[in-house]
Amino acid sequence: MTPDTSSTPVRAGDLGGALAAFREASPLVHCLTNIVVAQWTANVLLAAGAAPAMVDNTHEAGEFARVPVPGGVLVNLGTPQDHTVAAMRLAVAGANETGRPWVLDPVAAGGLGWRTAVARELLAQRPAILRGNASEIGALAGGAGGRGVDSTDAPEQVLDAARHLARTHGTVVAVSGPLDHLTDGDGLVRIGNGHPWLTRVTGVGCALGALMAGFAGVTDDRLLAAAAATGLLTVAAEDAAAAASGPGSFAVMLLDRLSTLTARELSERVRLS
Amino acid sequence: MTPDTSSTPVRAGDLGGALAAFREASPLVHCLTNIVVAQWTANVLLAAGAAPAMVDNTHEAGEFARVPVPGGVLVNLGTPQDHTVAAMRLAVAGANETGRPWVLDPVAAGGLGWRTAVARELLAQRPAILRGNASEIGALAGGAGGRGVDSTDAPEQVLDAARHLARTHGTVVAVSGPLDHLTDGDGLVRIGNGHPWLTRVTGVGCALGALMAGFAGVTDDRLLAAAAATGLLTVAAEDAAAAASGPGSFAVMLLDRLSTLTARELSERVRLS
Amino acid sequence: MTPDTSSTPVRAGDLGGALAAFREASPLVHCLTNIVVAQWTANVLLAAGAAPAMVDNTHEAGEFARVPVPGGVLVNLGTPQDHTVAAMRLAVAGANETGRPWVLDPVAAGGLGWRTAVARELLAQRPAILRGNASEIGALAGGAGGRGVDSTDAPEQVLDAARHLARTHGTVVAVSGPLDHLTDGDGLVRIGNGHPWLTRVTGVGCALGALMAGFAGVTDDRLLAAAAATGLLTVAAEDAAAAASGPGSFAVMLLDRLSTLTARELSERVRLS
Repeated sequence: MTPDTSSTPVRAGDLGGALAAFREASPLVHCLTNIVVAQWTANVLLAAGAAPAMVDNTHEAGEFARVPVPGGVLVNLGTPQDHTVAAMRLAVAGANETGRPWVLDPVAAGGLGWRTAVARELLAQRPAILRGNASEIGALAGGAGGRGVDSTDAPEQVLDAARHLARTHGTVVAVSGPLDHLTDGDGLVRIGNGHPWLTRVTGVGCALGALMAGFAGVTDDRLLAAAAATGLLTVAAEDAAAAASGPGSFAVMLLDRLSTLTARELSERVRLS
Repeated sequence: MTPDTSSTPVRAGDLGGALAAFREASPLVHCLTNIVVAQWTANVLLAAGAAPAMVDNTHEAGEFARVPVPGGVLVNLGTPQDHTVAAMRLAVAGANETGRPWVLDPVAAGGLGWRTAVARELLAQRPAILRGNASEIGALAGGAGGRGVDSTDAPEQVLDAARHLARTHGTVVAVSGPLDHLTDGDGLVRIGNGHPWLTRVTGVGCALGALMAGFAGVTDDRLLAAAAATGLLTVAAEDAAAAASGPGSFAVMLLDRLSTLTARELSERVRLS
Repeated sequence: MTPDTSSTPVRAGDLGGALAAFREASPLVHCLTNIVVAQWTANVLLAAGAAPAMVDNTHEAGEFARVPVPGGVLVNLGTPQDHTVAAMRLAVAGANETGRPWVLDPVAAGGLGWRTAVARELLAQRPAILRGNASEIGALAGGAGGRGVDSTDAPEQVLDAARHLARTHGTVVAVSGPLDHLTDGDGLVRIGNGHPWLTRVTGVGCALGALMAGFAGVTDDRLLAAAAATGLLTVAAEDAAAAASGPGSFAVMLLDRLSTLTARELSERVRLS
């Protein structure tokens, strides 16, 4: 019953398998994220079956990134401050030292000078996964960047940039958009699920990065980790939208559905290309 | 079908027109706000049709306040810290330099010493709109102030103070309460929509300030901007309350309704006096 | 109709009485808490009938903790930073100086070095109530600690540690878990209400600490304050779960139910042992 996806680098059935492993392990996701989406990110992780922990001070971030349990680290630049950026640097160093996967979400890179420099500096530390919208990815590859957190470009437009970043930095690059594009520089996975209301709730992309960090903690295949997180969130979003009357109830239903979506449903419903 | 409001400085039909312009422009609202309401504020803006961006570090706040796209800046003193207040000063300077409208929300001014001084300092920089409850407005005009974020005074009691502040600072003063009072020092608009549950959800007033910043980005008439934001939120609140069973579901329904309320509905249902 | 609880240090009817007093006084709860749960904590307090105020800067925290109105202070170590910890110290000093009750929630104590030291330092200042999960309480009493914010121990396992901490620090210790254990070092109250979804929503424990601070502001019996807060939250959770389809709608329904649960319902439904 799994659709034929033999031509893609990851198969639909693999996504279901990753979700089963995620639920089994309940990965610890160490988040250094922004003040806007911290609660939402934690609730998305809890609903999906992970264990969130927000540790973003310089005294503990490096220590916590070294905790030897299944999991990953999320570094999100939504509302950076000097003290949280310092903690991010320590967390990245700790994660790299212990081989812990970490995800970089360069929110609004390209649109603002300081965070773009910080994003480039962190990217040079080789995250397992780089997740952003098309404007952010384009900017990190040398483009002009957007006006803020929303994207004015389509993922297709920055695919070459994404592949280039993936190859030069040894990372998986995940470009969110109507059709999500994920690449390790070589292979390409496109995921066609989702709903427009995903753009009317703050922090959905940020939470997606957190889910990717969790999946990267339960599979060594980082392209699969990025794809499984994307599939889980966007398939759940389709059902949540069907049950909702606007962006408020959609966000609530999304949490509910993230907690009930099964590995089998994910495999059957994700639209890979 | 629009009620006769010829005696008020803004007419009901103008509010609908402002909402149409708001939806058309999707104004960028640069928020420097507090850790309690940042997510809620972003979701209210997104639901209503604006584009929120929280940029509150000193490296970027001044730069971002100068971005030349339709929009406005919100400066909210809910949980001020030295580093965010420094960013607020830079954002205000950037906004004033480029003629970008900004809104000051002096949360708990009067009740606490430091923020009251900060609020007075920022007020002297002449925001387009000053929004607060009666205690806060009264305190900034020289009164005693309340015990915290909630108001113990009625807007009617501080109307003279509001008019005085508006005239001396060249700003529109919006005093929230059961009957919202908005004045540019000369004209007065009162809006009679709303629901008691608005006081049982944190950050509704803060989100109202953010909406005002968005409306001020699409109309030069700042009294209209404040009135349109107030009308949008309070009319939507009436419908949300009718569909809800308590403050939790009310907040969810409010986001849903903010996304569907039409310009025509706003014009027809707002109660101006 | 009140169950017989004559053998417990607090009786079911006392919890209802405390809730009536809470609703009557609408205690001011001064929260120094984390960026993940600040909004949720404020909304829980508002729904239950209290007045939240988040004041966590060093300029105002000590001043605000001295405000002479009914209420209490919450000190939560979820996302400590140097500047917020400094504010916590000032708030604790202000509260102790004026006899204002304060609650310590040592999030993730034991799992991370710095905050464990901070938690011990603050605990030595003798909070009215210390609230945590079994791992945190065990760690503060000398145990090893857990991996983060979730607990791997059961309250029963740390009961001796909780009693010891309560006696040596003159505090009530509340250990959250499937069966909540509350002790003043001598008496023990166990509360058997709740629902597993309480562990799938971030910040429920943090909000419980805030409710305890509010109840401690309306009764001098700190064991009763901790019990009333626990009973209110967990009884409401049972009804919320019955009306919900997952952790997202559960959180929404929990806020609704916190606003409607009566003193009588609390007394009749709380399961004390």
